[in-house]
Amino acid sequence: MSASLGSPRLERLVKVLSRLPGIGSKSATRIALHLLQAHATDAETLAQAMVEMRTHVRACDRCGAITEEPECVICRDPRRNPSVLCIVEQPTDVFSLERAAIFRGRYHVLGGLLSPLDGVEPDDLRLHALRHRVEEEGVEEVVVALSASVEGEATSLYVARLLEGHSVRTSRLATGIPVGGHLEFVDDVTLERAFSGRLPLV
Amino acid sequence: MSASLGSPRLERLVKVLSRLPGIGSKSATRIALHLLQAHATDAETLAQAMVEMRTHVRACDRCGAITEEPECVICRDPRRNPSVLCIVEQPTDVFSLERAAIFRGRYHVLGGLLSPLDGVEPDDLRLHALRHRVEEEGVEEVVVALSASVEGEATSLYVARLLEGHSVRTSRLATGIPVGGHLEFVDDVTLERAFSGRLPLV
Repeated sequence: MSASLGSPRLERLVKVLSRLPGIGSKSATRIALHLLQAHATDAETLAQAMVEMRTHVRACDRCGAITEEPECVICRDPRRNPSVLCIVEQPTDVFSLERAAIFRGRYHVLGGLLSPLDGVEPDDLRLHALRHRVEEEGVEEVVVALSASVEGEATSLYVARLLEGHSVRTSRLATGIPVGGHLEFVDDVTLERAFSGRLPLV
Repeated sequence: MSASLGSPRLERLVKVLSRLPGIGSKSATRIALHLLQAHATDAETLAQAMVEMRTHVRACDRCGAITEEPECVICRDPRRNPSVLCIVEQPTDVFSLERAAIFRGRYHVLGGLLSPLDGVEPDDLRLHALRHRVEEEGVEEVVVALSASVEGEATSLYVARLLEGHSVRTSRLATGIPVGGHLEFVDDVTLERAFSGRLPLV
């Protein structure tokens, strides 16, 4: 379909749009044609919103989360408990945890996971900053909330070793069967973890 | 979720993105975060592609379809039969018919449908241009391919009356049961049309 839109620039927009996550070529065509037929300002507003976002959004100096200020709203919030630090991989993980509203401490975004095969070494992550914060901010507990992948496990272990010798408790999220999950559809490794991590019923 | 992204500009982008067709707030958030974490050039490329498209894409002087030149590729194509003209509502309808590759004549885009309640009068559509083309281009047949809605029917009738007295055949698309459609799911009006328009089996 995109070969016959009658305009190379329209086809180019479709191509660029279809690189976005969750947008196939049909949705991309639909969006491009919408922008073409919408008021001239709509496309400009969107273009401008994208450029503005890229220009102003930055990483929090303290935790690495998304902000437009030197420090993010969470780091600036005096009601957040500075003695508990939750380690996450990406700024987006902060949103997931905030959405669930289960954590009242502060975050520390690593910016990735250790992956020697992909060339991600400890110096590429915000690990120095983590140790510095643990030493300076009176942190008592570190909750490692990384993915339950091989890289996530390796990074969790690295964090635990990094903080050995500091008077800080470390913990990590439980692995197990997701709420509402049927045993039938749970993979073997998760099942084994859920089994070995079984808890008393009463 | 959008209330806690930590950046007003990111939230604004999510809001603008979620106005696009087929994009809800979850997809918009996903796209915005993708643009944030992608290479800086990605968001700029997309912004630029949108503005370029809006700047260069225009309506064909002859038929009203989408083009970047004074006339569209179809009007410029000498292999297209100029004696058959297909009337459509929007430039996007041209794509639909071209995709199906069923028509080898030329198009004429009206730019809308008559709708007195919405203030769309005959002078708002490209009807003068249509009569002019029928008179000047040696058109022998006009196929009216408008929606089977009330406005579409009214506009089709108006076109038929407009061309009365010109030596030109007019026809319109058949209404009936879509290919693969089950009787069970076909609405009553369509069913009635399909019934009254029934064709000999052999």
